[in-house]
Formats: sequence, structure tokens, C-alpha cells
Amino acid sequence: MNTAGKVRIAVIGSGKMASLHARNIALTPGACLAAVAGGSGASGLASAYGTACLEVDDAFSHPGVDAVVIASPNRFHADHIVQAANGGKAVLVEKPVDLHLGRVDECIAAVGAASDRVVVAFNRRFDPSFAAVRERILGGEIGAVEQLLIISRDPAPPPLEYVPGSGGLFRDMMIHDLDMARFLVPGIVSVQATTQETDPQLAALGDASGAVVTLATCSGALITILNSRSNASGYDQRLEAAGPRGTLSVKNATETLVLGSGRGGTNTGGAFTPWYGDRYATAYGREIEHLVAVARGEAIPIASLHDGRAALALAVAAARSAAMGQRVSVGPAAAQETTPMQVPLPG
Amino acid sequence: MNTAGKVRIAVIGSGKMASLHARNIALTPGACLAAVAGGSGASGLASAYGTACLEVDDAFSHPGVDAVVIASPNRFHADHIVQAANGGKAVLVEKPVDLHLGRVDECIAAVGAASDRVVVAFNRRFDPSFAAVRERILGGEIGAVEQLLIISRDPAPPPLEYVPGSGGLFRDMMIHDLDMARFLVPGIVSVQATTQETDPQLAALGDASGAVVTLATCSGALITILNSRSNASGYDQRLEAAGPRGTLSVKNATETLVLGSGRGGTNTGGAFTPWYGDRYATAYGREIEHLVAVARGEAIPIASLHDGRAALALAVAAARSAAMGQRVSVGPAAAQETTPMQVPLPG
Amino acid sequence: MNTAGKVRIAVIGSGKMASLHARNIALTPGACLAAVAGGSGASGLASAYGTACLEVDDAFSHPGVDAVVIASPNRFHADHIVQAANGGKAVLVEKPVDLHLGRVDECIAAVGAASDRVVVAFNRRFDPSFAAVRERILGGEIGAVEQLLIISRDPAPPPLEYVPGSGGLFRDMMIHDLDMARFLVPGIVSVQATTQETDPQLAALGDASGAVVTLATCSGALITILNSRSNASGYDQRLEAAGPRGTLSVKNATETLVLGSGRGGTNTGGAFTPWYGDRYATAYGREIEHLVAVARGEAIPIASLHDGRAALALAVAAARSAAMGQRVSVGPAAAQETTPMQVPLPG
Amino acid sequence: MNTAGKVRIAVIGSGKMASLHARNIALTPGACLAAVAGGSGASGLASAYGTACLEVDDAFSHPGVDAVVIASPNRFHADHIVQAANGGKAVLVEKPVDLHLGRVDECIAAVGAASDRVVVAFNRRFDPSFAAVRERILGGEIGAVEQLLIISRDPAPPPLEYVPGSGGLFRDMMIHDLDMARFLVPGIVSVQATTQETDPQLAALGDASGAVVTLATCSGALITILNSRSNASGYDQRLEAAGPRGTLSVKNATETLVLGSGRGGTNTGGAFTPWYGDRYATAYGREIEHLVAVARGEAIPIASLHDGRAALALAVAAARSAAMGQRVSVGPAAAQETTPMQVPLPG
Repeated sequence: MNTAGKVRIAVIGSGKMASLHARNIALTPGACLAAVAGGSGASGLASAYGTACLEVDDAFSHPGVDAVVIASPNRFHADHIVQAANGGKAVLVEKPVDLHLGRVDECIAAVGAASDRVVVAFNRRFDPSFAAVRERILGGEIGAVEQLLIISRDPAPPPLEYVPGSGGLFRDMMIHDLDMARFLVPGIVSVQATTQETDPQLAALGDASGAVVTLATCSGALITILNSRSNASGYDQRLEAAGPRGTLSVKNATETLVLGSGRGGTNTGGAFTPWYGDRYATAYGREIEHLVAVARGEAIPIASLHDGRAALALAVAAARSAAMGQRVSVGPAAAQETTPMQVPLPG
Repeated sequence: MNTAGKVRIAVIGSGKMASLHARNIALTPGACLAAVAGGSGASGLASAYGTACLEVDDAFSHPGVDAVVIASPNRFHADHIVQAANGGKAVLVEKPVDLHLGRVDECIAAVGAASDRVVVAFNRRFDPSFAAVRERILGGEIGAVEQLLIISRDPAPPPLEYVPGSGGLFRDMMIHDLDMARFLVPGIVSVQATTQETDPQLAALGDASGAVVTLATCSGALITILNSRSNASGYDQRLEAAGPRGTLSVKNATETLVLGSGRGGTNTGGAFTPWYGDRYATAYGREIEHLVAVARGEAIPIASLHDGRAALALAVAAARSAAMGQRVSVGPAAAQETTPMQVPLPG
Repeated sequence: MNTAGKVRIAVIGSGKMASLHARNIALTPGACLAAVAGGSGASGLASAYGTACLEVDDAFSHPGVDAVVIASPNRFHADHIVQAANGGKAVLVEKPVDLHLGRVDECIAAVGAASDRVVVAFNRRFDPSFAAVRERILGGEIGAVEQLLIISRDPAPPPLEYVPGSGGLFRDMMIHDLDMARFLVPGIVSVQATTQETDPQLAALGDASGAVVTLATCSGALITILNSRSNASGYDQRLEAAGPRGTLSVKNATETLVLGSGRGGTNTGGAFTPWYGDRYATAYGREIEHLVAVARGEAIPIASLHDGRAALALAVAAARSAAMGQRVSVGPAAAQETTPMQVPLPG
Repeated sequence: MNTAGKVRIAVIGSGKMASLHARNIALTPGACLAAVAGGSGASGLASAYGTACLEVDDAFSHPGVDAVVIASPNRFHADHIVQAANGGKAVLVEKPVDLHLGRVDECIAAVGAASDRVVVAFNRRFDPSFAAVRERILGGEIGAVEQLLIISRDPAPPPLEYVPGSGGLFRDMMIHDLDMARFLVPGIVSVQATTQETDPQLAALGDASGAVVTLATCSGALITILNSRSNASGYDQRLEAAGPRGTLSVKNATETLVLGSGRGGTNTGGAFTPWYGDRYATAYGREIEHLVAVARGEAIPIASLHDGRAALALAVAAARSAAMGQRVSVGPAAAQETTPMQVPLPG
């Protein structure tokens, strides 16, 4: 920490998420943006905030850096985590840790005990509404969850050039919802998945445009996840947890509090909050606050490398189930990545 | 009652409300439609239900009639009430009892002790939602009401030929809301009213197109009523009662439970329930059930002649306040109808 | 039809649903309750409505009966349909036609061309909100449905003595939702199901307490059905259909329009409409109106025997999928009832 | 502006609002906190942000200050505005400009042409939802507003020591709503007000605990404002504007998107957003952004000194109307402060 007691954070990467994190670091009282490193936009981003531009490797060993936010391309995440952790930095890494379970395991092994300073940026865990549902479930308000429904739909598919290296719908998109399932309900033992290929451009690239997954837990709870790459009414992010004493649900955010009524009915006058940057704006800010607390040794990761691995294992199992048309058990064996994947992984 | 133990009800009148009441009588297990009397459509209405068509005067003394529903033109209400009550019939009379306080007082005097078998059809008192608010207020849920807001807007003005004999906005339309104010909050002591004349056709007939009235009670509660003869989003019937422990509100009904979402937002896909026949369908059925109970001596009127008089007195006071631009006290003196009225009353 | 032009309807059965239908027949202008037949309560139900009590067999051939409502025990439905249809009566039969596909096929064969006068009482098809969604989908408002979600949860399990003869969750409860899936989206080709056994009493009887089913269509649409036998917040009956241009959803009904607000938030002040008799009150009335129209030759069945068979075939396939842990194709072959069923069927 | 092109802003005052503004200045990309001045907490606030602590008078002439935010005690506002404006600074001043119309007029005269760089911090104008309603009204979506309803209720009364110098409910609290009325509907010509004194502690200090005000415009529109100093369900900030083509409304914000359902109904699980700091958090940020734009000459004030004067004149007229029980015309004459006020004004 610097003389003002602020945690000095370097951002690795200079794309969209890197810029978003840089801004939140600047807005977080306990943090300061110490450097930007990596990517063609690094020097521009650094100068916009009046901070240093470093080489990537230097950032992980720089004495003026207490923590790093890894927002580099996915294929570098695992290496960067190891370098940063070994350099003694606290880490916030964008999901996924890696698209291959084997590399995730290697990363975890290489990081070792330092993993208690590595946070995986599953943004939904940091959202006040989703977090409140978890707290109220843990508080016993509805009893043990018997049915959980997670609806997660993007307003539009990603750019087509993004798809081939994305890992496919399960590892790229549903991984958030699989993690949320684990965040709210323990003991998942099986996965059953069905995909749809209604978007011809995604289908041409071997990816699904939607999927439904049913997870069962050892206690008999059923979890259902609905994903779609395209939703006319906007970014659809809801869940409902039902237990013997009640239901807790998270509804969609709207852009304003305005309603319009007329002969055609009453209308919210706009789609749901249009995209993740808006919907999870608060969550992104809380990620940085959490990184500050982890760097100071005041908190352990809300989402750890092991959570990152477990969500990926569920995504891999879901892809297998969809391909085979069978329920797939999950556990140590299921976590091995032995079946052909829906989308070819990048080198 | 007839041999099957049903209360035999005659409908006086053959217009829109008479038809509606005839249908509900046919649908009420404890009631049967004994006769229809009065108006050019009486024989048609009677034959549609396979029942007798009587002369109006005969209905009030007929031994086969236990109760009457008075849905004749307003100017006959007071006389019909007296005739029916003196004939030993239980009575449900459409509002108003009369448009003149003097004739209402004469009616009450002539009915005497039989008034405990005369129900004034203030339909909102019979609505399950409004009734539930009253019960919950009386149950102490929110404490003593401090502020009550009543919003009552019609989708469109009445036919222009109806206006001259209607008594004007306060006596014709707001009387329902003034009665609801009394139903929920006791001790009204003053009235302050402002009208608007934004509808030129109504203005040409001397009537307002909207009004805001503020009533104060002896305990310091404030009641606000918003009326409009025209509302683009449909029949708007809401209220909110706020007390020291909470707020109870009644929202608008919608035609279906369907919501439509798209790029333009989320929409109820239709205006509020379009008109009183739909919005208060349950209430009209409950009016007949209540009449049956009153006829059997199992209930006293939910809305009495005295309630009808009190609401009219408030309407008269509101019209005075609007004309004078002053707060008007209500009480025995205020109840006298001494000032020129906004709309000339029919002979 | 009788001299007043009313369709004369006999109710077969005298249980809960028979009583409900008798009441609605009495309330339907174009219908009259001609007789009640069958069950220990038949004479009581008949006398309550001042109508005749017949022997069951006589009802199907009685010249004073134009139509029958079959609300006898499930195991008699198929026989009663055949008798009634062969007797020239229009028919409204409670679901299921039968719990065995083979008997349903025999019934359809025996009824022959008269099947265009046999209505299966899938009540949700008659609900104004669900029907409006279908109309709006057919009108092209949201484009071809890509994802459909149906949530259907009972407030509490059925009486335990009802379970052994019920056919199990899929054939007894989910059959409504499987029919709704077919009502809204064409071309279902596969079923994938998972059950849960969180209710030990139901589990002891071999029945599930909940299930999630995913149906895929030939066009790539995915349909998800969530069922639970027990829901703390009441009778939960919702759906959402999403297409490329928007989403249409049906929300739950509430008992009143009242909201209560206080330090604990804003509350609807009561669970969802508590049970099917209330939630589908309008639908049951419309079933009788539809039967009247079919009896008069003015309409063809909204839900036919073939629809009853198709929903049962999906239920059978879902039970198989749940037992096998595999996706099951549906089609002529899948409709054969060749696998052991979750709940032993009655004789 | 400094070398980085940032507008250098000094905060005058060190209380709650001063702290809030200091934080927002630090978070606004185009602004920097140049100094804090005035009040016992000034040096602490300055050091918390690593900025200078000035004497108040120096702040208005300091060459390193481009703009000031005046959050000093109310009685200094007018003087500080004049000093700052004459010093060439852009100004954002907390409401009220002053509690006396006479001093406001003097202030306006002394500021002269510099008034186009003075913004009055009517926070609701900066709220995205209220602002969207204005834009949609101006866009013609609902036609000319015929009825406007503004509901504004605090969760709890202010500290009692605050009341004597506050100017009373109309000038302290309702002034926001009177300004909002002017923001949305032009041409107010009369005021009719009724107060309530249901809070004995406020009554002992000569202040009301609630009020209802009806404003009429030259076009015949009616505006109703409901105020209460105490609301069990939280900070209640709503409005509805109805015109011939529809209604635009702003609903309350909730703390999260979570709903809880159970046997007791469906609940938002928390009161409305608890207080102005949360409800108007975005608005406060936008105030600073607007000040930056005004300081740069890129915008004229969204709320000017003249708007501050007009809202105060309406508040004064409302207090007169409530005291007299009469409708009061507003215009040049009504703006004179000639009647005794409800709450004695400070020196």
C-alpha cells in the first residue's frame, strides 16, 4: 500500500473490461490505479488516468503494485494468475480461469497456498440482489431450496469473431449461471442439458444459440438454467429459489422508474437494463472493493480458483450431456475433459 | 321468500343497470327474479328471464315480491324508496337517493324505521379490494389513517344528453369517492375543492371535466380525491391509505394477466379494466347477495340512506367550495343546499 | 335443445368437479342442467338444483339430454365417452381420457367421426390469459417461439389416497402443462425429464414431488416445464414465451388488488390465488359455454380426444426419460406404452 | 481549468451535503476538488481528499477555483451566491436561495448577468426518471398535461432543532415539489392548500406534519402535491402526469431487485430507498456534471435563480392559502411576502 494507505492496483489488459475496471479503481476510495499493462490500448488507457504503462511481466513483480486485475485475453489468464500470485500480488481475474480443466488444475497447483488471494470475477456473486438472496437462504427464510430457476439471456449474440475462441455457450456464458447455482445450492451431482441451434450464424461456427440445463443435487433439489444468446426484450437476468417456506426471486432491472400508460396498456417504456456493464455496474465496483479487502488480508475470496474450476467442470459436463442426450454425473471423474467439445478450443 | 327459500326480487327499471342487476339476481343462489317493472324495456327484459312484467306501483305492494332493486331514473328514486319501504320490501337503490338534500331528508323521514332495510348501491363498498382495505384499517394494521388518496377517473365523459340531469361532477361522479372517504376515515369536517374545465363540451353544459378535493377530519387526517371525466389509460380506480404503521393501497385491475415485453419495454398489453361493469362485476354480485341477507333480516345495510345523504352533503359542499374558492366546513349547516349549484338540477 | 333453445346438459359424477360444473351450467344462459347421474352424491346434487337424478347409463341415451359433462372417476372416462358419443351427445370430459394410451386409442376408434363433438377439459386452454398468449403468438407478435417456460406448482400435495390411482405426477399433473406446450408451440420431437423425491410420503407411494422437463421441437425451440406438488407461496401458474421479437408472459393472479407497505416492504398481503377452483373460475365457465357451442354445431372442440392422447403420450415419454436418464424421442413409436411406469396404474 | 482541463471546484460548507458533494466532485472525471471552506469540519473534509482548506471569503476570489458548490447554512446562501458570482465563479447552490423573497430578489439583482452561471440544486430535476418524464411530455407523448400528482413523503421528521430555522414545511420540503410542478407544467395561476398537524412535536414548533396543495394553471390543468414528514414505508417519491393521450408516472425505487413470496404474499423485502442520499445518488452526481458544463460555458442552468425564486413564491402562497382557507392567486403580487408565515423565519 502507498503512503495514503491505498491498495495500488495494476490492470492487465486494455480492452473493454480492462477500461471498466480501471474506471472503478479510480472511483474506489481505498484503491489507486498504479499501472496499466498489456494490449495495444495500454498506453492510452494509462495516460487517460495519469498513471504508468508497464510491460506485462514487469507488472507482476513491480514493488509499486499490490494487486492486479487480469483482464487479458482468456488464453493468458492461467499464466498471469500464476505469475501474479508468485509475485505476491492479490489477484482479481476475469472468468474463465481457463477453458481447459487440465490447465486450471495446473494453475491451481502452481498457485498453491497463494490461492487465498486470488478472486475469480464471477460478477453475479457481487450483485447486491443475488447476494441478498444467498444471505436470506442461508438465514433460513425459505428453508432448504427445492427448486432453483436461473434465466440468463443476452440481448444479442457476441461478435462472430469472438465465438471460435470462446469455448462455446456452456463455458463462455452459462458458466456464470452454473456458478450462481453453486453459490445458492450445495451438492450438485448430475447434469442434463439440451441445446438449440436457432441462430444459423452461431450454428455454422458449431455453437448453440440457447440451452436448458437441469442440475440435481444430492438432497433432491432441482436447478434449471435457461440461456439464450438473443432476447428481444433486453438483458434478462433473473432467478427464483423456492423452498418449503417461500420463494426468493430477483427480477430484472429497468433503465428508469418511469411507466407510461395509454390505450395500449402500461409500459416500462424501455427494455431491461441493456447490457452487463449497466446491469452489473454496482457489482463491478464491489469486485474492486473486495480485491482491496483481500489485498489487505481482511477478506478471503468470495469466488476462488476452486469455484472457477467447479463451474467449468459443470460447463464441460453440460456440453457432454447435450451431445450425448444423457444425464451426466458430476464428481471427480466427470471433471475430466475427455469428450469432444461443442466448440473447438483455441490452441 | 318462495317455497325454495329464495328471496324474490323485482327490478324497477329496464335500462343498463336494471339489466345488469337482473342478470346478477338470476345468478345468485339465494335469489330469484320475481318481476321487472318500469321503462320501455321492461317487458323485453322480463321475457328474457322468463319472469313477470309488472306495473311499477304494483311491484311495491305485490305479495310475491320480497325485495326491490330500484334502477329507475334518478328523479324517481326517493319516491320509489318510500313506496317500497312502506310496502314492506327490502330495497337496493342505485345512487343517488336524490340530487337535492331536501328531498333526501323527506325520504328518510317518510321511510322511518324501515330504513334498516334500505341499501344504497355504493358499489365500491362491495368491491373485495376496497372492503379489504377497510377491514385491515379497522384491524389496526396501519394505525389511524393520516392521509388518504382516492383516484377516480373515467375512460371517457358520459353522453352529453346525460349531463344536464346528472347533478354535475360532484353529485354524479365524485359522490362515490366521497362515500369511500367516509367508509375509510371518520370525522370529516371541511372540504376544499378546485375544478377544471378542460373539456369544452362539458364546459358548455356548465359541468367540470375534473376536480381535486381535499377533505380534513377532526383528527387532522387529510383526504385527497382526484376525479377526471376522461383518462386515456382507461378506468382508473385506485386509493392509498397511509397511517403511522404503513400504507394500504388498491391498484388498478387489468383485463388479463398477460405481459408483453420487447424492445419497447414491458407492457400490460391493454388499458385498465375498461369500465365499471367489468371493474365492479364482483361488487354488483355482492350487492344482490347483501340485499338477500338484508331481506332475510340477517344483515343491516352496508350503505344506508344516511350514508347516501352524507355523501351528497359532501358533494354539495365541494361544489360550493369550488365556486367560492374557499374551504367549507361541513356539518348540519353545511348540509343545507343554499347555494347555486354548478349544474342546474332537473325539475 | 329444449323449447327455450337451451342445451340440456347432464353431469356424470357427483364429486367436487361435478358440483363445480353443475353450478356453471346453472349460470350459463344457453345451458340448463338436465340431470345428474352417478356417484353417491348424485341425488343430493340433483335436488340442490331442482333437476332429475338419472342412472348413468340412462343419461347417455336420454332424449332430454343434449350433452354430458363426464366428471366420473378416471377409470370410467373412456367408456363414458364412447357411450355418450354413440348416444349422440356432445361431451365435455375431465382429463385424462384414460391413463393408458392403449385404452385412449380404443376410445378414439370407438368414437369415430363423433369425436368432433368431444371436448377434453384442459382447463388452461380456456383461461383468458393463456388463450390471449396463443392468439398473440398466432398473430405474429413475437415471431416463432424459441423458448417457452411453463411453471406449474400446486400449493400442497393431493390427498395421499388419491396418489396410487392418479397415474403419477406426469400423467396426473404435468399433463396440463404438456398440453399447454402443444397449445402454444408445434412440433415437439423429444423429451428430457428429471424428477425429485423431496416429499417422503409421495416417495413412499412411488411418486415424485417435482419434475423438470425439457421438450425440443423440430424447429429447434426449447420448452421447459417446472412442476412441484408443494409451493409455499400458493398456486403458481405462469408461463413465458420468448421469440425473436419479444416475450409474452402470464403472471400469477392475486386474491385482491390490495398492496400493503410498511417498514418491511410492499406486500401483496396474500398468497397467489389459492387453488384451481379460483384461478380457473372463468375457464370453467367458458368450458360450459364451449360445450354449448359444440352441441349446437357452432364450434369444433378447442381440445379434442387427439389432444388428450398427445398430451398423455408426452407424459408417458417424460416418465420414461426420467427413469432412464436419457432424452426420449416422441412420435408414433414413442407413444406406445412399453416401459414400466413410475406409479402403478389402477386395474 | 487546470492543466488537465478539469474544472476546479471549491465546496463551501462541511456538513452532510458538503461531504456528499465533495465525494461526487472526486468521482467526476471533468472535475477536481480544489478546496473546502467554511464550517468546523472544513479542514477534516479537505484533508480526507488531500485538498486545500480555505477561508470562505478567499474561496470566492481564489484564482485556482473555477466553480463553487454552496452548501453553507441557508442564511448565508444569498450572500455567498453574490460573492461567488461576482468573483467570476460558476455556482451550484443548495436550495433555498433564501427563505425570504425580498432577499432572493436582492440576490438576483446583485448577481445580474452572471445568473446564467448560477445553478440551484433542485435535485429532482437531475434525477433520470423525473427528467425522462419531462422529456417525454415535451415530446408530446401524452399531450398537454391535464392532471399532475406529486407524492413526496419523508420517512421521518427532521431533527427538531432543524425546524425553527427551516422556513416550515412549504419552504423547506414542498419547495422541491413546487419546483417539480413548474418543471413539468407551465402557467400556474393559483394555489389552494390545507395542512395537517398530526405530529405534536412539530405542531409545538408551529410547523405542519403534512399538507395537500392544489395548483391550477392558466390552461386549466390541476396539480396536486401530497407531503408528509413521516411515512412508515419509507421515502416516498412519486409522480403521475396525465394528459389526453396517456399517463407518465415515476414509481418508487427499491433497495434491491429481490422479491420474497410465501403464505403471507409477495414482498419487496424492504422499504423504499430509505433517504434522499440513496434515492437521488445519481442526481447528485449529475448536478456536479452539470456544474462542470456550466463552468465551461457548455450549458445554461437547468434550474436558475429565477426558478428558485418562483418555487419560493409558490411556497409562500401555499402557506398563505393554508392559513386563510382560501385559494390564492399567484403572480407578481402574490410573490410579495406580506402575510405572517407559519414558522417564524430566522433572523
